[in-house]
Amino acid sequence: MDLRGPLCAGIDPHPSLLHAWGLSDDVPGLERFAMTAVEAFAGTVAAVKPQSAFFERHGSAGIAVLERLLAAARERGALVVLDVKRGDIGSTAQAYADAYLDPAAPLAADAVTASPFLGVGSLDPLFETAEKHGTGVFVLALTSNPEGPQVQHARTSDGGTVAGAVLRSLAQRNAGVTPLGSFGAVVGATIGETSEDLDVNGPLLVPGVGAQGGTVDSVRRIFGSASRHILPSSSREILAAGPDVRALREAAQRANDGFAPLVGR
Amino acid sequence: MDLRGPLCAGIDPHPSLLHAWGLSDDVPGLERFAMTAVEAFAGTVAAVKPQSAFFERHGSAGIAVLERLLAAARERGALVVLDVKRGDIGSTAQAYADAYLDPAAPLAADAVTASPFLGVGSLDPLFETAEKHGTGVFVLALTSNPEGPQVQHARTSDGGTVAGAVLRSLAQRNAGVTPLGSFGAVVGATIGETSEDLDVNGPLLVPGVGAQGGTVDSVRRIFGSASRHILPSSSREILAAGPDVRALREAAQRANDGFAPLVGR
Repeated sequence: MDLRGPLCAGIDPHPSLLHAWGLSDDVPGLERFAMTAVEAFAGTVAAVKPQSAFFERHGSAGIAVLERLLAAARERGALVVLDVKRGDIGSTAQAYADAYLDPAAPLAADAVTASPFLGVGSLDPLFETAEKHGTGVFVLALTSNPEGPQVQHARTSDGGTVAGAVLRSLAQRNAGVTPLGSFGAVVGATIGETSEDLDVNGPLLVPGVGAQGGTVDSVRRIFGSASRHILPSSSREILAAGPDVRALREAAQRANDGFAPLVGR
Repeated sequence: MDLRGPLCAGIDPHPSLLHAWGLSDDVPGLERFAMTAVEAFAGTVAAVKPQSAFFERHGSAGIAVLERLLAAARERGALVVLDVKRGDIGSTAQAYADAYLDPAAPLAADAVTASPFLGVGSLDPLFETAEKHGTGVFVLALTSNPEGPQVQHARTSDGGTVAGAVLRSLAQRNAGVTPLGSFGAVVGATIGETSEDLDVNGPLLVPGVGAQGGTVDSVRRIFGSASRHILPSSSREILAAGPDVRALREAAQRANDGFAPLVGR
């Protein structure tokens, strides 16, 4: 983020985007989309975020494309946040950690997104594996979709919210680490006001910027002092500039420049 | 379940189980494990439940094994509940639905598990796709792990619990459907007492039976009238009988017979 700016460029091979790029909704179309996006973004931005669901749609051949995307992005110097939102318990949580957070795995990423419905402590195998290998985890905390507050604003036994418990747990894991811990949160750009402490001394992955309404001003208002730790994540808006590689890169660069003031660049 | 009994046989190719079966922790070992389990279980029990994490560990080649498992299980007449615990919003949730609940997909299953951290309504694309194709969804509600209650017992704005909101939402979707709706819940066998109404007029996937402590008696006590809709899910206990196919099948049959009284067989 210091070197390249804060933007995390989403790689969402959505069927409608494949169509808009003149590609077919099949494995060759997926491969062309993924490699074009990597070529456009991965030499420029700090992080790319492939959305696993769009690769899983195409079965094992789609996952093989994801493997090639991961290798190609790494070669060009971008970190990869693999958006998988996994969560499970015990040895199954460990298996997800093995799958994505161990550099020896075929699908090794720099970080994954994780879901704490089984309790944030159930994700310990992911945290421990990330710690061991210098990788990271972004845990869902507060999302912008209308159904999110049902769970995320629910009150835990200590009187706080579920989201607050997730954030506090991350802050504890990151305490004292400089410049920033490896355990981040996913917090939507358009959640409105919140009384939660978003400064977890870790990175904040913030979807919903750009086309979905999050601006530099609104992000600064919501995140306050934590704004400097934000990876604003934009997918559809920048991908709409494709399939031309230069146009994609320029769209990403514009978004990156737009959010640079947040991190004091 | 009427024809074969209630058991859902887990297929968890855990590294320690691969080792115990004399197999290597690689793709050929995974394939041998998966196909042995299918041969042992899928002609006998109502449902098998492969745990996706253990296939994802091996990357795209592991997912290709999962594809072959799905096809082989279907050929032998077992339903497949693919344990993926996916959850996302909007078009990404739709992509997961496309990936697993559409019979045309390479990874098509009969049902998946899903996680409602983004609100149970965020899973609508999964419910709608399942409705359209005659497939099903099991949503996490109450789990037995010690960290689970932090989120699942948290109080929503209407004074109920998060788990209660999930269960009510499933009951609404299943209302009036006979003999049973397609939208089930995941409820642990060892959650202890609960005041939630577990009868959602849909199937209940119940891990934690057998080695983990759930017995016919304890299940009947927790689930009451909903006991007849239970798919008790056993993995490690029956898999420990391997790699001999006949021994595995007998272990599954014993577990199946043990829980048959629950469903009035």
